[in-house]
Amino acid sequence: MRHAVLGTGVVGRTIAGKLSSLGHEVVVGTRDPQATLARTQPDGYGNPPYARWQAEHPQVRLAAFADAAAQGEVVLNATEGLSSLRALESAGAANLAGKIVIDIANPLDFSRGMPPSLDPVNTDSLGEQIQRAFTEAKVVKTLNTMNARIMVDPARVPGAHTVFVSGDDAEAKGAVTDLLRSFGWPADDIIDLGDITTARGAEMLLPIWLRLYGALGHADFNFHIQKAHRSA
Amino acid sequence: MRHAVLGTGVVGRTIAGKLSSLGHEVVVGTRDPQATLARTQPDGYGNPPYARWQAEHPQVRLAAFADAAAQGEVVLNATEGLSSLRALESAGAANLAGKIVIDIANPLDFSRGMPPSLDPVNTDSLGEQIQRAFTEAKVVKTLNTMNARIMVDPARVPGAHTVFVSGDDAEAKGAVTDLLRSFGWPADDIIDLGDITTARGAEMLLPIWLRLYGALGHADFNFHIQKAHRSA
Repeated sequence: MRHAVLGTGVVGRTIAGKLSSLGHEVVVGTRDPQATLARTQPDGYGNPPYARWQAEHPQVRLAAFADAAAQGEVVLNATEGLSSLRALESAGAANLAGKIVIDIANPLDFSRGMPPSLDPVNTDSLGEQIQRAFTEAKVVKTLNTMNARIMVDPARVPGAHTVFVSGDDAEAKGAVTDLLRSFGWPADDIIDLGDITTARGAEMLLPIWLRLYGALGHADFNFHIQKAHRSA
Repeated sequence: MRHAVLGTGVVGRTIAGKLSSLGHEVVVGTRDPQATLARTQPDGYGNPPYARWQAEHPQVRLAAFADAAAQGEVVLNATEGLSSLRALESAGAANLAGKIVIDIANPLDFSRGMPPSLDPVNTDSLGEQIQRAFTEAKVVKTLNTMNARIMVDPARVPGAHTVFVSGDDAEAKGAVTDLLRSFGWPADDIIDLGDITTARGAEMLLPIWLRLYGALGHADFNFHIQKAHRSA
């Protein structure tokens, strides 16, 4: 299966690397491939420039958003949340139509300093905004509630912990669940929250995630929904 | 220790009953005690009228907000979130000054139907609003992220799961942690998120909590922060 991963940050690289290691064909999408490859300095978070990661992953191709999305049978949005809609507009509605669009982004607004706030929030979500903007895409929100390394290697955190799935299309959620299984997620740890409006709740985990990151001093943790056993 | 529990709903009753069973003196606060006791019909959630619970807990006293708060050495806010500030104003700033105020409420706004939204949210929280309105009180936000029965009986959900604590006063958080321990919470499952602004994150768990309640079909679950072991 050919996957387009939009976004060249740590999340995009981590997902692209995992998909590639699982034998998928991967195209990473960016606004301007030449500019992305020309950067030689670490990014704002201290991550090495994309070109270095690219050199270590020669089987992954880099392309402009539209080119990448056109090639992907599945499209993953790993761009920064506040610019995700612009990135997906560049990718082009026609290149998303009929496809599963996996939205991993969080709409974190750092413009008022730390801690960031969410925009939108409460009565809307980035997942819903993407679904409304691209009505022919099958948007599934998932994986946005944890550090990127845990997304593709859940065993990094011992014991059971949870990944949430939100979306309007049951078949698309089934395919995304299969993908999560291939990343190492046990079926019992994947919770289908419901339709795409449930992405609000998943995105609203970020404020406490950021505070837990501060309180614990590291990002190797995840939410787990601990349940009493009940007959359904 | 004498505790004032403001609010006569399920959360207030559950907390008041637990405190009483632990040997604490408990006064429940309400707007109008006569009116509260006069109700004979179930409330909007189908819970039996307060008078029936009161008859089963004769050692718990019912009083007006100000009277209850004046008697409490610790004050617990278990009123409905959108009217909590009004209830605490009725309780009176003088009756809260210097005391620990444990805020268990969530500012859920049902005025636009289901699912409810939060008000305030994102750049503020009910916990912070209460601390700003009652500057001489020591506000600690806790227990708001789970069903009332789990608050006072964590073993109801098997395995480890988490209760969060937010507040500006370290001594107050220590006293609240001791209270949580007496409710059955293991020390390892109590996470101090930081100052009262971290209540935003705890309150913003409600939207996903409500969706999980829908997806799981019951309220016997709780958030657990699953961590990789790290040396500090």
